Amino acid sequence: MLSSVELSDFKQFAAEARAAVDVELNQLLPGEGTRPLAVHSAMRWSVFPGGKRFRPLLLLATGECFGAPRDSLIATACAVELIHTYSLIHDDLPAMDNDDLRRGRPTCHIQFGEATAILAGDALQTLAFQTIADDEHLDPQTRVRLLGELAQASGTPSGMVAGQAHDLEAEERTVDEEELEQIHRLKTGALITAATRCGAIIGSPSKADLMKVTEYGAQLGLLFQITDDLLDVTATAEKLGKTPGKDARSHKATYPGVYGMKAARELAVSAHASARAALESLDRPVDRLQAILDYILDRGA
Amino acid sequence: MLSSVELSDFKQFAAEARAAVDVELNQLLPGEGTRPLAVHSAMRWSVFPGGKRFRPLLLLATGECFGAPRDSLIATACAVELIHTYSLIHDDLPAMDNDDLRRGRPTCHIQFGEATAILAGDALQTLAFQTIADDEHLDPQTRVRLLGELAQASGTPSGMVAGQAHDLEAEERTVDEEELEQIHRLKTGALITAATRCGAIIGSPSKADLMKVTEYGAQLGLLFQITDDLLDVTATAEKLGKTPGKDARSHKATYPGVYGMKAARELAVSAHASARAALESLDRPVDRLQAILDYILDRGA
Repeated sequence: MLSSVELSDFKQFAAEARAAVDVELNQLLPGEGTRPLAVHSAMRWSVFPGGKRFRPLLLLATGECFGAPRDSLIATACAVELIHTYSLIHDDLPAMDNDDLRRGRPTCHIQFGEATAILAGDALQTLAFQTIADDEHLDPQTRVRLLGELAQASGTPSGMVAGQAHDLEAEERTVDEEELEQIHRLKTGALITAATRCGAIIGSPSKADLMKVTEYGAQLGLLFQITDDLLDVTATAEKLGKTPGKDARSHKATYPGVYGMKAARELAVSAHASARAALESLDRPVDRLQAILDYILDRGA
Repeated sequence: MLSSVELSDFKQFAAEARAAVDVELNQLLPGEGTRPLAVHSAMRWSVFPGGKRFRPLLLLATGECFGAPRDSLIATACAVELIHTYSLIHDDLPAMDNDDLRRGRPTCHIQFGEATAILAGDALQTLAFQTIADDEHLDPQTRVRLLGELAQASGTPSGMVAGQAHDLEAEERTVDEEELEQIHRLKTGALITAATRCGAIIGSPSKADLMKVTEYGAQLGLLFQITDDLLDVTATAEKLGKTPGKDARSHKATYPGVYGMKAARELAVSAHASARAALESLDRPVDRLQAILDYILDRGA
């Protein structure tokens, strides 16, 4: 665990990084009051005020651990958040998870109607790729590499859409440990891993270091999903900002559902240890990446 | 008008180019029978057998007019078709245009359900950008430029999603000529113009030539939309492959609706003439671009 000085440094970093991400997102998004009004309002409704900005923070922390300047990281960090936000809008739709509440407010389709929500999600995905393609802080070679990483982590067969599709298919039957792990590796793990990899890539890591970062990201993604599932069982709607107990009611494949609460908590501790070991093998200043890891473990405790 | 020899050359080009596009699309898409099964089947259902492949053909014809080799064009041509296909899937959804029939077959959500259709559209958009990012026939500088062009033409405020959003907003009221033109410039014109521009860009045009190509694309896009609207009034479902008369019933803003049939046909002839003038100012072999133009005019006659 980190010392209180290290933890205080991390909290300062996180608050300042979140603010920087929000400034950049505000510039990237179509202006408030511009036409077409409804879809632009819907995009902003879903991006702001936003949650913890976990993925952009992770990307910034990883990139800065590899010595990349903030200017070269911020657009890609926002692109990852835009992909994440588009996926939340589409996942919440009536035909998908049919959720009314997100981050303590009505979901996008409740607020703006389904058609506008579908279009807002579509436009946020487009904007994510456009943001990296247009980022003049990065050379074109790096941009196409990042675009490839992000696309692979977002689409199918090895990204988020594949995970969501697999998850929907699995609602109708019982899944085993292996299938559960596969669903979540794609559905949430791929984008979290991509955030760490993209940050590192901007910092020009050695191949060996990039593999260690990938392992950290994969274990962190697993930890994130387990603790997310645990929170869905234990937290209140107020604390969660979305409808709790939803997973069980919709027969989602979850870690507590497949393993039970106790074994799920043990799995979380094990993923934390694996991610920590990957970090410790990096000859880099990893305090912030360690702090992120500890924070995600603690929230599910 | 073209001579019969020129027309025969064009027909041969079109048939052969369509076949090449289909081979490439088949390689780009996740394999039939791979997991997640439903979303991969849905992606293929909507991409194949496909329609006229108008946009990829246009991109190939423009690129080859600027001397670009086929190998350097084909992936970008497919990317444009993937964007077009994703937009059809999402536009057909019950919350949007609620269409049951497309290219003579059930629409994606009728065949696979709404959730899978939403995800298939999402994944096709991702695949479009991934395809260009990964295209090693192009240098990274060209790839990021093409990605920027395609993203701008697909998203908002200056692309397809903006046009679709504007169109939905306009269903509740009467639109004037200016607004109609703006809706269609965004909704269909932007992607058609992007197809011509991307093809030209791969052929390294002069700035002046790229402007002429852009004008050709914009007028062709206008012509395309007017004749599409005319067909919706005059054609049968069998010929159209989708539900005819739909525009009027859903109070869509159309050229026949705003101008009447006769004036709409005159507008089509005028757009054709403007596009032709742009082509004639190019010191290039433009027979195929001319043939495309004539074909689009004829279908609405």
